[in-house]
Amino acid sequence: MTDLALRVLGRVESPLASRADAPRQGDEGAPDAWVVFDESVRAALADLAAGDEIILVSWFDRADRDVLTVYPRGDRTRPPTGVFSTRSPDRPNPLGLHRVTVLAVDGLRLLVNNLEALDNTPIVDVKPVLGDVADR
Amino acid sequence: MTDLALRVLGRVESPLASRADAPRQGDEGAPDAWVVFDESVRAALADLAAGDEIILVSWFDRADRDVLTVYPRGDRTRPPTGVFSTRSPDRPNPLGLHRVTVLAVDGLRLLVNNLEALDNTPIVDVKPVLGDVADR
Repeated sequence: MTDLALRVLGRVESPLASRADAPRQGDEGAPDAWVVFDESVRAALADLAAGDEIILVSWFDRADRDVLTVYPRGDRTRPPTGVFSTRSPDRPNPLGLHRVTVLAVDGLRLLVNNLEALDNTPIVDVKPVLGDVADR
Repeated sequence: MTDLALRVLGRVESPLASRADAPRQGDEGAPDAWVVFDESVRAALADLAAGDEIILVSWFDRADRDVLTVYPRGDRTRPPTGVFSTRSPDRPNPLGLHRVTVLAVDGLRLLVNNLEALDNTPIVDVKPVLGDVADR
């Protein structure tokens, strides 16, 4: 099938340099990190503010896209599992979902907490966490 | 910046044919729908089962990628808002996140509930909803 063209809209600036440094999930000890966006999406960012809960969508650019099954959490005593049942970064489209809180906004830069993505990881979308239907 | 190549891994089969038919979110009256996957990802799907709560990642192929601000929920009495603070399908990378429950699995086909994506929408990833850290 035809590929879709995903645009890189921003990049992570993080002290996490390699997969060996990264926790398995953001709520397992990941650091604060900056996300630096491209000038072309300034208007899309304009309403984000400190305190907002958002989902950052990343592209795990150091992942292996040919992997279809993994040992969950690298534990070889567990059975190999299809990647659609895991959050492994190794998967056909290495998209990551990161639920974080915005700590600060500085122009095209957002400081967020609990981000387990590595330094320089592309960011491809930002979405609000949805609350109750009545508040949308 | 360079684009990333996202592979189409499956397609939605839904009674929703156009944006006028679709609810704004899956929990606002969206129908059950099938997702039909490509043979190449059979092993990635192998551990999904009825009852699983998953996040389908879609590509809103009928969206307008040049839109950076919208009136939330189409309400022009509300101020225009940057799309990163909304779930509008119109956005630079028109990715959709759909939290659904698997109702049935039939080979490469998954039946899910509450899917507001239109018929033939590409699916680009599937992830489990994460529970407590101790259960991962």
